[in-house]
Amino acid sequence: MKVNRLNRVVSKLTENGVSQMLISDPASIFYLTGKMIDPGERFFALLINADGENIIFINSLFTVPEELGAEKVWFSDEDDPCGIAARYIDRDKTLGVDKNLPARFLLRLMELGCALDYKNTSVCVDTVRACKDSEEIALMREASRVNDEAMRELKTRIREGMTERELASQLKDIYASMGAYGYSFDPLVGFGKCAAIGHYEAGNNTLCEGDCILIDMGCVKDGYCSDMTRTFFYKKVSDEHRKIYETVLKAQKAAESIIKPGVRFCDIDKTARDIIEQAGFGDKFTHRLGHSIGIECHEYGDVSSVNENTVEEGMIFSIEPGIYIDGDVGVRIEDLVLVTQNGVEILNHYSKELEIVY
Amino acid sequence: MKVNRLNRVVSKLTENGVSQMLISDPASIFYLTGKMIDPGERFFALLINADGENIIFINSLFTVPEELGAEKVWFSDEDDPCGIAARYIDRDKTLGVDKNLPARFLLRLMELGCALDYKNTSVCVDTVRACKDSEEIALMREASRVNDEAMRELKTRIREGMTERELASQLKDIYASMGAYGYSFDPLVGFGKCAAIGHYEAGNNTLCEGDCILIDMGCVKDGYCSDMTRTFFYKKVSDEHRKIYETVLKAQKAAESIIKPGVRFCDIDKTARDIIEQAGFGDKFTHRLGHSIGIECHEYGDVSSVNENTVEEGMIFSIEPGIYIDGDVGVRIEDLVLVTQNGVEILNHYSKELEIVY
Repeated sequence: MKVNRLNRVVSKLTENGVSQMLISDPASIFYLTGKMIDPGERFFALLINADGENIIFINSLFTVPEELGAEKVWFSDEDDPCGIAARYIDRDKTLGVDKNLPARFLLRLMELGCALDYKNTSVCVDTVRACKDSEEIALMREASRVNDEAMRELKTRIREGMTERELASQLKDIYASMGAYGYSFDPLVGFGKCAAIGHYEAGNNTLCEGDCILIDMGCVKDGYCSDMTRTFFYKKVSDEHRKIYETVLKAQKAAESIIKPGVRFCDIDKTARDIIEQAGFGDKFTHRLGHSIGIECHEYGDVSSVNENTVEEGMIFSIEPGIYIDGDVGVRIEDLVLVTQNGVEILNHYSKELEIVY
Repeated sequence: MKVNRLNRVVSKLTENGVSQMLISDPASIFYLTGKMIDPGERFFALLINADGENIIFINSLFTVPEELGAEKVWFSDEDDPCGIAARYIDRDKTLGVDKNLPARFLLRLMELGCALDYKNTSVCVDTVRACKDSEEIALMREASRVNDEAMRELKTRIREGMTERELASQLKDIYASMGAYGYSFDPLVGFGKCAAIGHYEAGNNTLCEGDCILIDMGCVKDGYCSDMTRTFFYKKVSDEHRKIYETVLKAQKAAESIIKPGVRFCDIDKTARDIIEQAGFGDKFTHRLGHSIGIECHEYGDVSSVNENTVEEGMIFSIEPGIYIDGDVGVRIEDLVLVTQNGVEILNHYSKELEIVY
């Protein structure tokens, strides 16, 4: 068990008047134990208790290290795992559960009457996970360093007439050659007008002179995610496209520049949005400014107009303004940033200046 | 709405004494409406009612076709979607929910007192989805046809000294060139002793003379999944490996040959397992014989020793026995099969005879 992390979670639970919580989110279990298991449809959960007794319930198909620091309760596919877990839950107290616990387990635990009542206490884990500790910060820096390097390599593979998919499909091997064995999300590659389409992945559209090249990509390295976007232009750039690019860049840098502990997420969003609005593109910036990231690519807490929480030291999130002109062009520039004691550290170092690729 | 499918689900619900169900599994909503939306962390659900009134709850960030055949109730990120859904649920009756409904929605609906009680009625949807209709059968045949063709193409890319990852990474483009734009699961490629490792994906192990080449792969085409395994040998095969291969092949064919409506899943499993046991490899066949497949790669119902249900016309599942010798070799042979009125149709046509690749 990662004792410091666990103690922070237990403190939050206690503040919320809850003394026991069943954690089933594999990313949260990884966060607290260092062991990642994808249980598929099977039951896999960590019961934590303010009294300090922690129990992990595991199917015997999986393996966990001896020195996990939690009592292990094994079961097989023939057992009723909720029935087994219920024996360890204090039925006279509230049971906290996390937000994704599937109904098949929650309803079964309720049917067994395993607790006094049930409460979604995800926020007690999620807010702790939001503030990265030094071990996590080192891993996040490394994942973004690999992402910078991979962007540099991928750029050299750009060729006239190639499809978006042909470019995107080279990325997995590039990451692997750098020791990162997975995507944090499937890469988004859009050329020209396709870069303006929301949630566009990568298609059969081919690269032509004058196209923008939007690349939004991230890897998983040692359990932690990176995520960065750069937008290049192929062989030439029109004055209008240059203006759009410079507007996005100005918004991106301005938002990054105000980040420090105590600033509200919504004010960071507003800083970027105001610049884009003043340039006349307000209705072309159609999404929130960013999202938290760590073990998962999208974690609790987003950089949006509705999030009035303040940022805290150790938080890591994306800053990714964009302007999307239907049928013409899409520009997005994205870095990951770490909130430091007095300001901000940008985790991505790949240049953001307008770059024309030949 | 796919009316026939919906009517079958409603019949099952009625048999179980439930008149309303909130369906949140995106694959089940796709099955009933033809529209696939991945809502991420957002609420997205279809409320079906024995009285015939169906309502879909959608965030305005998503789009659905005009002619969906269900009433649409829109909400935004600022709304409480469970509060909105609660207005449409009959609070004096049981509400069925599906197995994966996340606790954050289920607990909120309970807090709102939206129904008399709550029941996991997933099986009412899952058993209907298990028996494919003619439209689905055509799509499943096509996905497996592409998989056969892709296996043929991938085999031509095998080279001495290449890594498993180098081979596996070529598959996405091969599928795309055939009109299939995604994996049903990340391809498993194992050379030699790595083929014996459970859940092994594809690593930096390089191909040598005498190695087995285990390839387990599947694509998604038009919303439906394929899944097939073949095991080749590189340049030569030892007598012991040939014996293992022939044992697996015999078990695989024997299991397929007994399939027809009314046969129990566990007896299909036993047919393959007995042959492998008789050959002395019983403890080397370490997993169930197969799993159901359709919109998702793993669906309700597996071919295992503990499933005493009988197979029905229209069911599609895998038959995939294997023998795994630690530190030496792994052999698995897998087809998808469709239960027909009187027997079985094998959906994969790529040869299963022992093949040496040069």
